[in-house]
Amino acid sequence: MIILGLDPGLGTTGWGVIRKEGNRLSHIDNGEIETDSKLPLANRLLLLDAKLNAVINSFRPDAVAVEEVFVNKNPQSTLKLGQARGVVLLGAAKARVIVTEYAARLVKKSVVGTGKADKEQIQAMLRILLPGLKLAGPDAADALAVAITHAHHIRG
Amino acid sequence: MIILGLDPGLGTTGWGVIRKEGNRLSHIDNGEIETDSKLPLANRLLLLDAKLNAVINSFRPDAVAVEEVFVNKNPQSTLKLGQARGVVLLGAAKARVIVTEYAARLVKKSVVGTGKADKEQIQAMLRILLPGLKLAGPDAADALAVAITHAHHIRG
Repeated sequence: MIILGLDPGLGTTGWGVIRKEGNRLSHIDNGEIETDSKLPLANRLLLLDAKLNAVINSFRPDAVAVEEVFVNKNPQSTLKLGQARGVVLLGAAKARVIVTEYAARLVKKSVVGTGKADKEQIQAMLRILLPGLKLAGPDAADALAVAITHAHHIRG
Repeated sequence: MIILGLDPGLGTTGWGVIRKEGNRLSHIDNGEIETDSKLPLANRLLLLDAKLNAVINSFRPDAVAVEEVFVNKNPQSTLKLGQARGVVLLGAAKARVIVTEYAARLVKKSVVGTGKADKEQIQAMLRILLPGLKLAGPDAADALAVAITHAHHIRG
């Protein structure tokens, strides 16, 4: 099965696609969708939606996994994140793909083995789990980590 | 011209449609879109999107007006509001309608004449400005108020 992991954000949304065959995982692709902060909000959301749909249509995932949100201390950042997240969740739902959310601690534990892993440890482990991986950036890494978490939590 | 005012929320999104002809305003319709909190988040966003699209397709507004957000003190509420708001702004943008945001104080000032008006004063003024008005609820009233604000801030 094909799993799409997503790390939504208004400025940058990370995405990562993996294949799970039995217990074997392999990397398919990863990237980051960026929207220009100079554009009006509605246009940024439209751009994010269009680019996410292009990713979904390219890889036709069987499942989408998203990290549950660490709510930011800055309310304006939380609002921005929420707006991007709403668009991303809607895009997946419209493509009739089931979205599962995983707590950040669980993602870290699934990938590195401890809920307190830092970003470098996660990226190092991603390179071990997915040989030949080239990361588009830190948000793409987070997206792959949540995709792997989903792979570890489903059967088959 | 037809103006659609929106007061986005994950649980309830208020909407209100008015017609502006020169300086004359008239009420067309108002309502509230509700999503069941027992449904998964992605399904709630899908439902909100579908119902909002039905409103946009029914009334074909020339403009959409939305209140700028008072960021809630509760971060989880802010995140929920953001998710609903992202879906609503995307829906309007996809329908190629320009969305304008107005600060809450400006909405109150436009409708009642003071930035400190309370909800009752706003609803009483809506009934004066839009004779024969029957309100679907408080969120529909807020949506009509922002539609009127837009009407007062554009030419023609």
